[in-house]
Amino acid sequence: MHAPKDYQCPFCAIVAGDSERKRDVIFENDDIIAFVALRQKANNLGHGLVVPKKHYENLYEIPDDLLAKVYIGVKKLAIATKKAYRSDGITTRQHNEPGGGQDVWHFHVHVYPRYRGDRFYEDYDNIVATGMPERTESAKKLRAALSVD
Amino acid sequence: MHAPKDYQCPFCAIVAGDSERKRDVIFENDDIIAFVALRQKANNLGHGLVVPKKHYENLYEIPDDLLAKVYIGVKKLAIATKKAYRSDGITTRQHNEPGGGQDVWHFHVHVYPRYRGDRFYEDYDNIVATGMPERTESAKKLRAALSVD
Repeated sequence: MHAPKDYQCPFCAIVAGDSERKRDVIFENDDIIAFVALRQKANNLGHGLVVPKKHYENLYEIPDDLLAKVYIGVKKLAIATKKAYRSDGITTRQHNEPGGGQDVWHFHVHVYPRYRGDRFYEDYDNIVATGMPERTESAKKLRAALSVD
Repeated sequence: MHAPKDYQCPFCAIVAGDSERKRDVIFENDDIIAFVALRQKANNLGHGLVVPKKHYENLYEIPDDLLAKVYIGVKKLAIATKKAYRSDGITTRQHNEPGGGQDVWHFHVHVYPRYRGDRFYEDYDNIVATGMPERTESAKKLRAALSVD
């Protein structure tokens, strides 16, 4: 486990609804929640996260049944993201431990819209800061894509 | 769908056991199979894949129950990989469509051992070709890690 003892988990705050980031939420059910990511890649705007509501640090410790529910949510978000952002594809990924690229200590899966020639891996640190208005707009766009066939 | 009409699926060949790659197999059950990847990243040897036995092209079309089983297998492989390769972390990822980085048309999830300073993203095309002996050895090492606590 890598979370410090007094860790204030930012994802638990979103789950609890006591963060301004509640406006970033795309969908939720009893077990999981999906929201727009804070750090966006410049060529892949619309990047979202799916997390379990109950706090588990990583893939090694999340129970199988909850892991299953997270990935069913990832599939749902992937389909909506492709539709909302008219992407050429979708990449999902998940990091465990600092040596594995993790920096928020609550299990989470990334969903990225992908485009031909987007240099997704080559420009891996091409990150833009997003403000609340952009994220609220993204969440709205993704929620709209969930409700159409 | 992006697979050509007469696609000879290399993963279905492994599932059928009629490929020399049966020696790459790490574990399997009625629904899924895990095996050592053909293309290995130089700093992340031990990269494995988990796939459903039944052929589905991507995340959009794989049924939820089978998707759940694949990711329960991913967790199992992640834990074994960390143990077998004494890694600092684990990254998993999954690509959909050519624009999303997919190049084998059978849904599959990558599991990579990760290390501090491995330049996993910066050197994204630092790939080494592996021969049968190296892969057989990796599979053996990963199978051994499955059977210990």
